[in-house]
Amino acid sequence: MSKPDAKTPRDRYRAQVREEIKKHAWEQIATAGASALSLNAIAKQIGMSGPALYRYFVNRDELITELIRDAYRSLADTIRARAEAGADLSDLAQALRRWALDDPQRYFLIYGTPVPGYQAPEDTTQIASEIMAVLLDACAAEQLPVTPPSPVETHLDEHRAWAGQHPAPPSTLHRALTFWTRLHGVLSLELAGQFAGMGFDPAQLYAAEAEAITGR
Amino acid sequence: MSKPDAKTPRDRYRAQVREEIKKHAWEQIATAGASALSLNAIAKQIGMSGPALYRYFVNRDELITELIRDAYRSLADTIRARAEAGADLSDLAQALRRWALDDPQRYFLIYGTPVPGYQAPEDTTQIASEIMAVLLDACAAEQLPVTPPSPVETHLDEHRAWAGQHPAPPSTLHRALTFWTRLHGVLSLELAGQFAGMGFDPAQLYAAEAEAITGR
Repeated sequence: MSKPDAKTPRDRYRAQVREEIKKHAWEQIATAGASALSLNAIAKQIGMSGPALYRYFVNRDELITELIRDAYRSLADTIRARAEAGADLSDLAQALRRWALDDPQRYFLIYGTPVPGYQAPEDTTQIASEIMAVLLDACAAEQLPVTPPSPVETHLDEHRAWAGQHPAPPSTLHRALTFWTRLHGVLSLELAGQFAGMGFDPAQLYAAEAEAITGR
Repeated sequence: MSKPDAKTPRDRYRAQVREEIKKHAWEQIATAGASALSLNAIAKQIGMSGPALYRYFVNRDELITELIRDAYRSLADTIRARAEAGADLSDLAQALRRWALDDPQRYFLIYGTPVPGYQAPEDTTQIASEIMAVLLDACAAEQLPVTPPSPVETHLDEHRAWAGQHPAPPSTLHRALTFWTRLHGVLSLELAGQFAGMGFDPAQLYAAEAEAITGR
C-alpha cells in the first residue's frame, strides 16, 4: 500500500478513495481475473459514478500499474529487509515463498500470465531491478568454488546490462537468474494448484530447489 | 484440435461449429484474457444468437475445458511422438519450448494464472498424468550415478501416487518434477516478457537448465 503523505484534508480524502478503489480492484481480480478488471464495476460497488471514479484513475491501465507497483514495492521491501537483517539465499527463498503464499493474486499479477493489452511502464521495471540487486548481493556473498565459466555464464557476462553496476562474476549472474526462475517454477505451479491431488508437499520440493541453488 | 469423427451431415456441421467457436475463443483469450471469455460475445461475432450458441457449449466452463483438453492433448501428443522417436530428456526440453513458443496463450491456459471460478474436470488431470509418464520414462532412461536418497527424494518416494504404477526410483521421481518446474520457470517468465529488455538470450538460460537436469 502506498503511504498517503497528503497534506490537506482534500488530499487525504483523495488518497483514501484511491486506496478504497484498489481494495475493490484486488477483490475483482480474485473473483474475475485481472483481465476482467472494470472501473465502471468498481464505481458501482462504491456508489460512485463512472466519470467520478475516472478522476482518481484515468483508465484501467493506470489502476493496474498502481497495483503492480504496490505489489513489487511490497516484495522489494520484504526481500531487502530480510537481506539487511542478515538473511542468506536460503532465507530469502523462504521469505519469497511466504510472501507469495500470503497473497497468490498479488504474485500472479506481477509474475503470472500477462494481462492482454496492458503494457507496464518503465518505473515498475526499476523496482524489479531493485529486487535483482538484492539477489545479486546475496548470491555474491555465497562462498562457492571458482570454476571455468560455462557457456551460459559467458553469455550472461557479455549481456550483463540488466545487472546494472553490480560487479558480480559470471557465475553469480547465472546463480541470481536461476534463483529466480527455479523458485518461480515451483511457486507458480504450486499457487496455480498444479500439484493439488499429487499428494506430495510442495514445500519440500521448494526447499530442495533453494538448497540446490545455494550449493549445500 | 479434436478430430471430427462425425457420421451424419448434422454431426459434421455440429463439429464444424464447435471448432469455429473454439477458434473465436482463442482469439478472445489473446485479446482480452481467459477470465474475460464471453459466450455471448462469441455468438455475436459469428452471427448466432446466445441461446443458439449454448446448444454447442452449455457454459463458459465447458468451453474452457474443451480448450484446455485440446491444449493438453496437443502437448501430450508432441512429447510422446518425440519420445517414441528416441528423444532424450534434452530433446524433450527443446520440444516443450518449441510447443510453448508456438502459442504462448495455449501454454498459459494450462500452466499460467488460474481462471477464477473455473474448476478443471478429472479427465484433464489424466492427460497431465500421461505427460508425466513420458517424462518419468525419459528420466529413468538417463544413466545417473546412484547416490543415497536426499530428504526430498525420500519424501517423494513416500508420496508417489502421482507416478501411478511407474517403478521409478526416488531420484527419478525428483528429476521428473524438477524437469517440469525448472523448465516451466524459465519458459513462463520468458513467455510473460519478464526477460524483455534484460538483453540476454532466454534460449541459453533454458538450455543450461535442460543440461543441468540431464546431468551433462
